[in-house]
Amino acid sequence: MKKKEIFEVIVIGAGPGGYIASIKSSKLNYKVACIDNWNNNNNKNIPSLGGTCTNVGCIPSKSLLNSTEFYNNIKNNSYKYGIEINNINFNINKIFEKKNKIILKINKGIMNLFIKNNISYFYGTASFLKSDKDNFYKIKIKNSENIKIIYGKNIIIATGSKPRKFMNIDFDEKYILSNKGALSLMNNTKDIGIIGCGAIGLETATIWQRLGLNVTLFERNERILSSLDIDISNIMYKTLINKNLKINLSSEIKNIKIINNKVCIEYIDNFKNIKKSLFDKIIISIGRIPNIEELNLKNINLKLDKNNFIKVNKNYKTNLNNIWAIGDVVGGKMLAHKAEREAIIASENISNIKDNLNNDNIPSVIYTYPEIAYVGKDLLKLEKEKIKYNIGKFPLIINSKNRILGCKKGIIKVYSDFYNNEILSAFIVSPYASEIIMEFVIALEFKASTDDLSKIIYPHPSISESIKDAVLSTNNNALNI
Amino acid sequence: MKKKEIFEVIVIGAGPGGYIASIKSSKLNYKVACIDNWNNNNNKNIPSLGGTCTNVGCIPSKSLLNSTEFYNNIKNNSYKYGIEINNINFNINKIFEKKNKIILKINKGIMNLFIKNNISYFYGTASFLKSDKDNFYKIKIKNSENIKIIYGKNIIIATGSKPRKFMNIDFDEKYILSNKGALSLMNNTKDIGIIGCGAIGLETATIWQRLGLNVTLFERNERILSSLDIDISNIMYKTLINKNLKINLSSEIKNIKIINNKVCIEYIDNFKNIKKSLFDKIIISIGRIPNIEELNLKNINLKLDKNNFIKVNKNYKTNLNNIWAIGDVVGGKMLAHKAEREAIIASENISNIKDNLNNDNIPSVIYTYPEIAYVGKDLLKLEKEKIKYNIGKFPLIINSKNRILGCKKGIIKVYSDFYNNEILSAFIVSPYASEIIMEFVIALEFKASTDDLSKIIYPHPSISESIKDAVLSTNNNALNI
Repeated sequence: MKKKEIFEVIVIGAGPGGYIASIKSSKLNYKVACIDNWNNNNNKNIPSLGGTCTNVGCIPSKSLLNSTEFYNNIKNNSYKYGIEINNINFNINKIFEKKNKIILKINKGIMNLFIKNNISYFYGTASFLKSDKDNFYKIKIKNSENIKIIYGKNIIIATGSKPRKFMNIDFDEKYILSNKGALSLMNNTKDIGIIGCGAIGLETATIWQRLGLNVTLFERNERILSSLDIDISNIMYKTLINKNLKINLSSEIKNIKIINNKVCIEYIDNFKNIKKSLFDKIIISIGRIPNIEELNLKNINLKLDKNNFIKVNKNYKTNLNNIWAIGDVVGGKMLAHKAEREAIIASENISNIKDNLNNDNIPSVIYTYPEIAYVGKDLLKLEKEKIKYNIGKFPLIINSKNRILGCKKGIIKVYSDFYNNEILSAFIVSPYASEIIMEFVIALEFKASTDDLSKIIYPHPSISESIKDAVLSTNNNALNI
Repeated sequence: MKKKEIFEVIVIGAGPGGYIASIKSSKLNYKVACIDNWNNNNNKNIPSLGGTCTNVGCIPSKSLLNSTEFYNNIKNNSYKYGIEINNINFNINKIFEKKNKIILKINKGIMNLFIKNNISYFYGTASFLKSDKDNFYKIKIKNSENIKIIYGKNIIIATGSKPRKFMNIDFDEKYILSNKGALSLMNNTKDIGIIGCGAIGLETATIWQRLGLNVTLFERNERILSSLDIDISNIMYKTLINKNLKINLSSEIKNIKIINNKVCIEYIDNFKNIKKSLFDKIIISIGRIPNIEELNLKNINLKLDKNNFIKVNKNYKTNLNNIWAIGDVVGGKMLAHKAEREAIIASENISNIKDNLNNDNIPSVIYTYPEIAYVGKDLLKLEKEKIKYNIGKFPLIINSKNRILGCKKGIIKVYSDFYNNEILSAFIVSPYASEIIMEFVIALEFKASTDDLSKIIYPHPSISESIKDAVLSTNNNALNI
């Protein structure tokens, strides 16, 4: 056996978790291989490192959101700025080309990092074989051209997740779309239905509504973003309704059929009436399940939880010696940035470096307009842990920067400890909320109190400066309201 | 004498310092008066609370920057987004109307806060008279209609600053403009010269360049933003030059004359040649001096420093019993948000509440594109205090969010303590830097180390997430570069 086929660390998957685990392991002086089976749709020979996030997730969705927000702004708001435009049109192919170029740059950027860090990259699908070599795992890499075997002392599984099916209907990506189809060019499409009003549902709804499609959302709960703070749900519901999105709350879908090139959704609406709606396509965004089938885990007896996520301890170690798992495949918040952090912790754990992650301090963002971002223990968790709290709110309609940006909506809402005023959680609806939420993440890490955040100096004008009034209002001491 | 003419706290000035001092004092249960002499240009009867910042400073400049950035983006970048526009024009009157509407809303908002907090507002210019009442200061309020006398137990002076003249030439606001004229409509203007390349110089240059004027900047130092980090200077110099702004570095102005309705600047250029340039108007932005003349301070013997700023201790108390001074009139960083914080400390000090401000942790922002923001001890201060440091840098061209936004420039630069990795200062050039800098402000307040900031979880995609690589690179541990 050639020496190059034995590695100290094999990482399976090159998404945000896997590629960071590979680089970090290499920086810790291990001989590293990374196996990944994404490739470029247009050219099978170009590897597409970056996983779901880069190829069909965060990056394409944010690129399309950015482009369509700009288009929407020009179309609807330029007259408010004294900008006069005669005729505006969009070339949908170019919007999608721009997205593809950004993806390609990131794909290539990760490949360059692999080369720079001396990481052996293998294109193909990894599966575990029964090992014939003591203290080494045996892994088969299969792609359309060949099969290869490599051995690894330590394994980090970072295979991610895939969209959950609805009523067991397969994604054909023609009528029934996952996130992949939802972020691809759609031809001859006027009406789309979206099942699920979480982050992916709202982001794709926003993109297609801006591009002129009729978008109808279905939500089984009585409010959108039902796991979020009720004020945030309400603000976003009003915002979306104002943009002519149809939202069927408390709706129960009974049947989905494809009839005459249309998708027919039969559902019970919130008045308990049975209704039917026809769509050109529907997008299913009801959550994601772990990618484990192809790993052939029965060959190594790796333990899964009841939902088939890989079971790990706080160091992201599985039940097996020298196997770690990180990112979506271990469950929890399915976020690129959680996977990246777990990648560091797992890689360090191989070297016995101690590190840990506080799940409460992982920020979440929905990139609608305005953006939604939040971090910390939500109301449900506060009630469950019997923590007594104060609430502070500041409506951003009176924030100067928000006024300059012409944003009429927005709020900063803060929960603080009733006894010692420690910040417990924060919810922001505003432009740039994806950046501003970090102020609260850092505040939470340092157990900052409302008093601490009220005495810090924020630039004027900024949206951040209203954090001061939001935290002061937990004790009714806000100055600008 | 009527009881209503005696106040426990009189605040002179209703800019960001004065209006916050008034509200805070009222919240601390004092009977408060606030005297201010700004009024609406169009209607003398409408008070224009908010001072220089709201009326001729931060707010109008950011409104014009926002509008012109949008126009500039549509004109130059929409094709990159697949957006096709036939004909684009701007109505300059509407751009200025939008700005005026925002100002008016903020003026009214502050007035509403005064009413809500039971603050007596007096329109006019305040001056000290020799008091005829023990333990009370006697203040004359003069406006175009009448003169009024009120008495105050405690006084907070927040009269702000005004633009410094160049070579003792008066601002006529027709040929020789201060920040006020620089942010007003200009008719029949093609060529403007700007003396001074600080925040105000660069912001006004950006506005007028975007609106189609030929802009020439004069800087006596060998680089723009000479008090800032050299990397930041260099990035911004290249950015501005690319936008067709002319910048005369190391230029020494010898003479300014108005000839045939043009302003002629005679200067020595960086090759030591004598040159002449003609402009329709010039903007002077070489700093600001305290507003003290009208206060008649000789009647109370208030101490000034050698530059005529009011001398205060760390509680913002002057040499006199029961007189405090805050904001631009006491010198230091001339920033609205510094004044606001000082307002709180002075108001609390009247009630013997202890509080203090760390001048190193005041963020500064220049709202160009990309924005520039920075906080902490700069290189000069680090060298002076003999602090040994590491430098970390991350070029934002490889940040995913920056790629999505199409921003080709940008950097996050961090100085950390050589021995314990504590963050000492940070410089950001990026979109939204005005918000992102707050993460470092909070980090500095909590004495965070590079290790702390590298373990915190940042949303993906965001510009903030590159803070991780910037701080890791202080010890050559960045992963994405």
